[in-house]
Amino acid sequence: MTGLYLQDGHLSLRHDLEIPTPEKNEALIRVLLAGICATDLELVKGYAGGHNGVLGHEFVGVVEACAIEEWVGRRVVGSINLGCGVCEFCEHEGPEHCQKRIVMGISEKDGVFAHYVTLPIANLVLVPDNVTNEQAVFTEPLAAAVRLTEQVSFQKESRIAVIGPGRLGMLIAQVLMLHGAFVTVYGRSEASLELPHQWGFQTDLVAGAPENEYEIVVEATGNTAGLTTALQMVRPLGTLMLKSTFAERSEVDLTKIVVDEITLIGSRCGPFKKAMHLLEKQLIPVTDLIDGRYPLHQGLEAIEHAGQKGIRKILLETR
Amino acid sequence: MTGLYLQDGHLSLRHDLEIPTPEKNEALIRVLLAGICATDLELVKGYAGGHNGVLGHEFVGVVEACAIEEWVGRRVVGSINLGCGVCEFCEHEGPEHCQKRIVMGISEKDGVFAHYVTLPIANLVLVPDNVTNEQAVFTEPLAAAVRLTEQVSFQKESRIAVIGPGRLGMLIAQVLMLHGAFVTVYGRSEASLELPHQWGFQTDLVAGAPENEYEIVVEATGNTAGLTTALQMVRPLGTLMLKSTFAERSEVDLTKIVVDEITLIGSRCGPFKKAMHLLEKQLIPVTDLIDGRYPLHQGLEAIEHAGQKGIRKILLETR
Repeated sequence: MTGLYLQDGHLSLRHDLEIPTPEKNEALIRVLLAGICATDLELVKGYAGGHNGVLGHEFVGVVEACAIEEWVGRRVVGSINLGCGVCEFCEHEGPEHCQKRIVMGISEKDGVFAHYVTLPIANLVLVPDNVTNEQAVFTEPLAAAVRLTEQVSFQKESRIAVIGPGRLGMLIAQVLMLHGAFVTVYGRSEASLELPHQWGFQTDLVAGAPENEYEIVVEATGNTAGLTTALQMVRPLGTLMLKSTFAERSEVDLTKIVVDEITLIGSRCGPFKKAMHLLEKQLIPVTDLIDGRYPLHQGLEAIEHAGQKGIRKILLETR
Repeated sequence: MTGLYLQDGHLSLRHDLEIPTPEKNEALIRVLLAGICATDLELVKGYAGGHNGVLGHEFVGVVEACAIEEWVGRRVVGSINLGCGVCEFCEHEGPEHCQKRIVMGISEKDGVFAHYVTLPIANLVLVPDNVTNEQAVFTEPLAAAVRLTEQVSFQKESRIAVIGPGRLGMLIAQVLMLHGAFVTVYGRSEASLELPHQWGFQTDLVAGAPENEYEIVVEATGNTAGLTTALQMVRPLGTLMLKSTFAERSEVDLTKIVVDEITLIGSRCGPFKKAMHLLEKQLIPVTDLIDGRYPLHQGLEAIEHAGQKGIRKILLETR
């Protein structure tokens, strides 16, 4: 089969990959559509020590083979962490924090930028009929956005700032709005704020962002400048959510964190079923985020496109 | 009167200071004993833009004059933040986070390394008869330690690591132990761990600190190396409390915070009455932390001594 394969930091399109063989507890899935996210781009740049294998973790597909007959032929998405199953984390909080976990497309398990992938049946979530492939492929990043609402509580009409109007920032803004927050989206350029404005958000340039203003600020840029701005914007006793992986060690003004007693919360993977529920209810216009579609054999061009400034979601058609 | 005066980053012993005149809502306090803390040392080094005025904020004294007669002649300690009194913070959370606050001995209000100081009556807390001056002078840092227990909740017998067996770290360890935690104190040298060991804590060198081990880690060193260690030690979904002011911007591994969904909480001033209650009950052997006492006219030597490695609390006798 064909796939985008990362080997020692070098990404290539390979046609010689073998269709993976599912473990007993796994399903073999034919990938229909996959999404490129910031983590993929960071991995190509060498983030987190690198992953050797097929890249990609956002997908929708069809189960081709599986020990449980009922799954075969069903359209699915799937969560990306595979835990050991027996540790304290796996038992209480799920595989996301298992210290022995492997992560599809990110660490030690082949990903979805290929014709086929395998995943444990326990990781699969059915896609309802009224959710299109183009919507379903957003389940993983939408789940990551939903995760925030599990980690921080806020009152209805709380004023929350989201910094970074990119793929993830936009989903976060929508989820927070659905939870009753009054969200302002901050971006570096007027162009980047067009879509958030269309979606009905208050918007503003980071250059004019107010200091000590917001009880909750979400950092969704993944760069140190964004973090610095976010920290300036959060008010004393406020909360700063870190939602992007940072490729490098960053300088942080810890004095502000201590003196203003800021809470800083890291946030990663989220609940797929809650995200799918939002998609099923058609509550999030996720397809507005699509900036391009490429067939799998033009995957390298797709990755290049996804890395350009101002680009939100690029999809790979793997059918 | 005599006092240790900081002017444009230069600390000097002055004998030409005028005894301060209390505002209507203030008391004039004769200082009996004062304590030197890390913030004083940072201010002398030029931290936070500098303070011009008498240094010092940890004290015990006697009220000499006051609009409310009952206070006169009473032994008191006092909280250090003076808010505007009318803002949202002053109304709901107290003056600690008032954006217009002045802070005794730290910012725009003369401090306690002098014969006299003034403070609002609302800031004063009576010292019970069974609490000695040497104990009462620890109220401010002990309150800062108690603050942690207002910000993070934990189960009895939770395992908590405190990094930095200095003046503040030791008080933190004691307070957490009183709240039922099982505390391990980490230090750089065997010598620094002698007192925590005597106090009955499990101790260990930071060099051999385990990774991903503790649900709660308290950083009480105020240096970047301590912070780096603290972050390594905290387990996924765990909490890292920042308890020291950092003189400089520090590099932080934000990837760990995001990937392991760490919560980082800054912590500053705390509740004086709760701290005094602990002292009254004789629950914290604070005087073990005293490493030296100097008369006020040897204040510069005292500051120098307090800055030496391994030194915990240096007191200034201002009588």
